[in-house]
Amino acid sequence: MDITKFAIPEIIFGRGSLDYAGQCALRLGAKKVLLVSDSGIEKAGWVQKLMDILKKEGIDWVYYSGVTSNPRDIEVEQGARFYLNNGADVIIAIGGGSPMDTAKGIAIIASNGGRIRDYEGANRVSRPLPPMMLITTTAGSGSDISQFCIITDVERAVKMSIITRTLVPNISIVDPLILQTKSETLIIQSAVDALAHAIEAYTSTIASAFTEMQSLKAIDLIIKNLPCAVETRSLDCLEQLSIASVAASMAFSNASLGAEHALAHSLGGHFDMRHGVIHPILLTAVMRFNLQGAEGKLADIGQVILGHKLGAAHETALAGIEKLDEFFATFKVSQRLRQEIGEEDKHFLKPICQMAVNDACVLTNPRPPSWQELLSICEEVW
Amino acid sequence: MDITKFAIPEIIFGRGSLDYAGQCALRLGAKKVLLVSDSGIEKAGWVQKLMDILKKEGIDWVYYSGVTSNPRDIEVEQGARFYLNNGADVIIAIGGGSPMDTAKGIAIIASNGGRIRDYEGANRVSRPLPPMMLITTTAGSGSDISQFCIITDVERAVKMSIITRTLVPNISIVDPLILQTKSETLIIQSAVDALAHAIEAYTSTIASAFTEMQSLKAIDLIIKNLPCAVETRSLDCLEQLSIASVAASMAFSNASLGAEHALAHSLGGHFDMRHGVIHPILLTAVMRFNLQGAEGKLADIGQVILGHKLGAAHETALAGIEKLDEFFATFKVSQRLRQEIGEEDKHFLKPICQMAVNDACVLTNPRPPSWQELLSICEEVW
Repeated sequence: MDITKFAIPEIIFGRGSLDYAGQCALRLGAKKVLLVSDSGIEKAGWVQKLMDILKKEGIDWVYYSGVTSNPRDIEVEQGARFYLNNGADVIIAIGGGSPMDTAKGIAIIASNGGRIRDYEGANRVSRPLPPMMLITTTAGSGSDISQFCIITDVERAVKMSIITRTLVPNISIVDPLILQTKSETLIIQSAVDALAHAIEAYTSTIASAFTEMQSLKAIDLIIKNLPCAVETRSLDCLEQLSIASVAASMAFSNASLGAEHALAHSLGGHFDMRHGVIHPILLTAVMRFNLQGAEGKLADIGQVILGHKLGAAHETALAGIEKLDEFFATFKVSQRLRQEIGEEDKHFLKPICQMAVNDACVLTNPRPPSWQELLSICEEVW
Repeated sequence: MDITKFAIPEIIFGRGSLDYAGQCALRLGAKKVLLVSDSGIEKAGWVQKLMDILKKEGIDWVYYSGVTSNPRDIEVEQGARFYLNNGADVIIAIGGGSPMDTAKGIAIIASNGGRIRDYEGANRVSRPLPPMMLITTTAGSGSDISQFCIITDVERAVKMSIITRTLVPNISIVDPLILQTKSETLIIQSAVDALAHAIEAYTSTIASAFTEMQSLKAIDLIIKNLPCAVETRSLDCLEQLSIASVAASMAFSNASLGAEHALAHSLGGHFDMRHGVIHPILLTAVMRFNLQGAEGKLADIGQVILGHKLGAAHETALAGIEKLDEFFATFKVSQRLRQEIGEEDKHFLKPICQMAVNDACVLTNPRPPSWQELLSICEEVW
């Protein structure tokens, strides 16, 4: 095994763990918190609940809600000015990937200056960030665990990946009770996002023994618990999805991802599509492409999905991919790209694939793709 | 699942990862390092190698080697004075559990003052510690990952457990190349120590999904790789033991341990015995005691040890424990207490068990023992 790094935040996990947010903020030295969230989380009552918890510990806050889905460069830069102008000392986000990635972007600009695009790519942030605590309200994005931050560069219409160890927050709070206020669609999209993280991290060229066990655990838990989480909304099943999401995030944060996420970043940047919508369309197609290069690992994944091995590795891998397609189909999600993009925009696929091939996630795909091969994958699922 | 915490250091793992010690120290802000080690590690050449690595990065150091096996309160208190008198700013230890626990104790006193016994128990350290980087030279103690520090109180002849989240070091470097310079005895004792960590963490009453997967992985790797590591000294097998040790440490640091470690602390404090010597004697006896209270979990462990399930849970659990006894026997380690203590000291068992029942590790044992029950266990393996 090559030399590998494994870094995760301190994780506070469990039903009601949100109640510990105040004590955790105190431990980070909080006197005046920048609180980041969005209107959906506000409406569900979680922002007010968090404010009450902070108040109980005597912690002051200023609230920044200028966050949209797929957060943009200007939102991050405005947020950083807001943080600095208000003399805040700790950043707390509550929400899905968007508020959490916004919080990370704000942290970068607040202590490093400049514009967020200056930090695109790997390891380009030099100064330490303000203390950060992230509270996820979904079981999927993994931003609360990971060293990734995805921000849209509006001018270039691209989702930038910013990857650096200092983006791992100090504390991550994962409270499955919050999932109870989420829609069925969001639960499915989040779980599919976590599943894609787990699978691409497992086949990554820099996966390690530490990330591999997390990946397989996550895949197993999602296959077993997403159906009951959707059907019954049982807290037990939702909790298992939360565990899966944390495990998948530990894996991808340290092993990175692959070609499917590279495409998801480019498609998402151009068409403002959520990852959870893109994965059921592209994930199995990329897995088929990766059979050459990662057959053994895809067989491991197949074994977890199927619950048993078949004869040869190739057979298990392929049967697992087919079973995964069937799994997606049971949730009635779109599995064709044209249903999400529309015929009139098909000509954008070429520049999107030409951009995707330069995404940092391509570097760890087990089979290095050309942009033409990425285009073939998109056409296969058109 | 109850609310649970999961905290580990940043881990740099792999063959040659020691070479990153200088860069990591710089990241911690090191200008003058307190280097802690012992004469065995010195003789093997690792202290000099580490000094050369620090020198290359322009980092100054002072060296403290006042460490014995089962480190003592006075050694820690002397080390803290040495750290302060020399104006050091980062603590680095290279060694097994003894130098690493000494480094942790020094860190506590250096920033919190007082005597080390003031911090015995859980969560009694209030001020932040100096940055710490720990480099393990064994695959067992787990001190480089854990929030535990075990120091002998000489006056009371007891091993004190000091447990607090701030004892998780900033960075842990695990380089399997270092294991190549270790004796067969040390490799066996360390692996047995890791195995006991994994098993007691798995049956702990505060085990979580995050610690359980680490425990089972560690057990599997040790059962599969200790024989070849001892027979062939192959680097592949040694590396797998290193992975197992890290996994077991992530588990026990966050799930704590049980009655077997409580006894090991008291016996070790009184007779200056290494954990790796005590576990083959006591571990399976405590597992049998825990059958009432943790049958299902011991069956999971049995399944990993045996490679398959038997009919009922009780049967699998029991067969696993028996197989574990056979496993220990193949390494020709002592499995009887009298061989280590001697008939003339048998009367010490009663006060030792009366002390052990108050050890913090007893709190998470799946079946709460009385001191009389602990004594029965000791007599059973006499």
